[in-house]
Amino acid sequence: MTGRATLRRDNLSRVLRHLRDHGTCSRADVVEATGLHRATVSSLMTELIAMGLVREAGTSTTGAIGRPRRDVALDGSRVGALGLEINVGYVAAHGSDLGGRVLFSARSGFDAAGAGVSGCVSELARMAGLAAAEMGTLAGVVVAVPGLVSQGVVTFAPNLGWRQAPLADLLRAELGVTVEVGNDANLAALAEYACGVAAGTPDMVYLTGEVGVGGGIIVGGRLLQGADGFSGETGHLPVDPEGARCACGHTGCWETKVGLAALDPPGATGLGLDARVDQIASAAEAGDTRTLNALAEVGRWLGLGGSILANLFNPRAIVVGGYFAKLASRLLPAAQAELERRAVAGGRCRIVASELGFEAAARGAAGTVVDRVLDDPLILSPGPRELLRDHHPVEQ
Amino acid sequence: MTGRATLRRDNLSRVLRHLRDHGTCSRADVVEATGLHRATVSSLMTELIAMGLVREAGTSTTGAIGRPRRDVALDGSRVGALGLEINVGYVAAHGSDLGGRVLFSARSGFDAAGAGVSGCVSELARMAGLAAAEMGTLAGVVVAVPGLVSQGVVTFAPNLGWRQAPLADLLRAELGVTVEVGNDANLAALAEYACGVAAGTPDMVYLTGEVGVGGGIIVGGRLLQGADGFSGETGHLPVDPEGARCACGHTGCWETKVGLAALDPPGATGLGLDARVDQIASAAEAGDTRTLNALAEVGRWLGLGGSILANLFNPRAIVVGGYFAKLASRLLPAAQAELERRAVAGGRCRIVASELGFEAAARGAAGTVVDRVLDDPLILSPGPRELLRDHHPVEQ
Repeated sequence: MTGRATLRRDNLSRVLRHLRDHGTCSRADVVEATGLHRATVSSLMTELIAMGLVREAGTSTTGAIGRPRRDVALDGSRVGALGLEINVGYVAAHGSDLGGRVLFSARSGFDAAGAGVSGCVSELARMAGLAAAEMGTLAGVVVAVPGLVSQGVVTFAPNLGWRQAPLADLLRAELGVTVEVGNDANLAALAEYACGVAAGTPDMVYLTGEVGVGGGIIVGGRLLQGADGFSGETGHLPVDPEGARCACGHTGCWETKVGLAALDPPGATGLGLDARVDQIASAAEAGDTRTLNALAEVGRWLGLGGSILANLFNPRAIVVGGYFAKLASRLLPAAQAELERRAVAGGRCRIVASELGFEAAARGAAGTVVDRVLDDPLILSPGPRELLRDHHPVEQ
Repeated sequence: MTGRATLRRDNLSRVLRHLRDHGTCSRADVVEATGLHRATVSSLMTELIAMGLVREAGTSTTGAIGRPRRDVALDGSRVGALGLEINVGYVAAHGSDLGGRVLFSARSGFDAAGAGVSGCVSELARMAGLAAAEMGTLAGVVVAVPGLVSQGVVTFAPNLGWRQAPLADLLRAELGVTVEVGNDANLAALAEYACGVAAGTPDMVYLTGEVGVGGGIIVGGRLLQGADGFSGETGHLPVDPEGARCACGHTGCWETKVGLAALDPPGATGLGLDARVDQIASAAEAGDTRTLNALAEVGRWLGLGGSILANLFNPRAIVVGGYFAKLASRLLPAAQAELERRAVAGGRCRIVASELGFEAAARGAAGTVVDRVLDDPLILSPGPRELLRDHHPVEQ
């Protein structure tokens, strides 16, 4: 891309982000806020209106002089951003427009581990089809998976039993739109940072609570990537040399202490994720001793692992999602106490329950599509759509 | 500070950093590289020359036309930057000029834990006196300590037995110059990033290997601070529920597995740090079974804890300092093997021995003084010197 093209792309992006963040305003407001030349803003507006991303929003008068202003506003409806998630017990989708308005939201139980890669691709395509029927044209799709991702390939997802699965290519072939793949915890962390209980907290950790346990780390307001995009692998922290065997092949991983399986009653098999969580909640409600003891133990281990994260990242909040959030009242008091007991500055770090539910990762995935468009509106133009994959990855 | 003063400070800083990074060059080179106006550069040069930070470096002719250029260069000699370190078994000092030329380097055994805060302040002042005798006027002093630091106060240093020790104030009263205090591992990490074996690696972890074990984390080329500047507390990661008691009061901390005490022969007391390390090296050389077994065990635990860091930060290198570096050939093969066995992407992360010795933290401390001056040369002007403490902390 030439310097001139880059500049235009960045200017289009600045104008769009201003309208997204500030709502309806006049061209003069945009000139002032962006520092761009009046003629430049006028030309950018014309282009964005032609692309259907900005609309005229009537005229208004302001101030003592009462000069009429010609207002403009983001036209979010042109862009359908779809986030999908495939995880051990379910598939989820979250669709929004460019302004973040929710257009579609669904989750259904699905035996992803049993379905294999091709079965999962079919299920994701089915879900995307349902979404597209309500959303219209999709600008792009981002898929969250519980594993390591590199360049659209899921290199390792122990709880799905996947290795080197080219998910982006497979799903693009089904859907005919650009597909990007990211780690579930990283995408959920982005959603939490954007609109969760600890939104805007610059130093924050997000933990998925599912069959596996993943982490997404926000450092100074940005997602921590690491050298290969593989940061935040919390599930396999070795916390107990005498511990049980983990799906990854080692023993004593944190996931064996706080993954959902640590709470299942003996012989609990064949139930879906939600049913398992409901069963545990009911048993706790009924005062079942085994369940209450198991919850206390998981809470303590959650705090112990949390102390590792607190000692290393010194975050202000650890946001726990998935089943941790569903059972928060049973888990978090013990977890917070153990965190404060063990972490050097533990008192300054609160463990809080996510309010985004099991849809957090799909929501972050949809937000990533929106970000791609806001970063470079030109990816919506006719022509090669592969540009979407040239941006910063949210892989892990 | 007014906007105008801030701008001037930033411009002085840009010119100085250019000269530091590029050596002797002409005013025209500086104009081109900084994008500043010719008259502005001329005025900045006059000011920097008057401050003794830049010197005329003669004239030279270049190019076909052979127009004479009036060269300028950094005059490092005006600024003496002193880094000190106080640690369990020793005190260290590293002095440099603004260009990074080493002016002073010393380390001596010292029972810091036994001396208490005031004894340590006296010893640090004595060391600073020796340094000043060789270096001339000190532009500032940064002290590295093995503990948590907030605003010049060591809030907690378990291996020194300190709590809420106002080290910056106490030492400033002795020395009469600005004193800043930082965490030893953070300062050593900065030194490693600047001039160590893995210099310039954007994602990197540094581990101190002493009686305690601390960590300094470089993320995307910057020191990870966390919400309170308390990140990188590696010593107290809980790795063994059945483990031994730690100085922090808990059990099974990583420090109990890989701190120097894990290698001491039974009854080893009263020896200084260097003598202890030498004794262990000699015993290993002589084929002492207990020592070799202990080294293998420490190596394995080093790799296990390294896998936590690799899984969370996904660094390209873990640089190990202190005694880990001294005994690297005995420790690192086992550590690397365990790291690769346990970490999800462990094969991409190398554990390497620091070449900066026990002086790494003092070197990083001196580098921090240099950075303060490069960031704001005006702190060298007569008047209140407290400005030095307004900058980004390297605390922990």
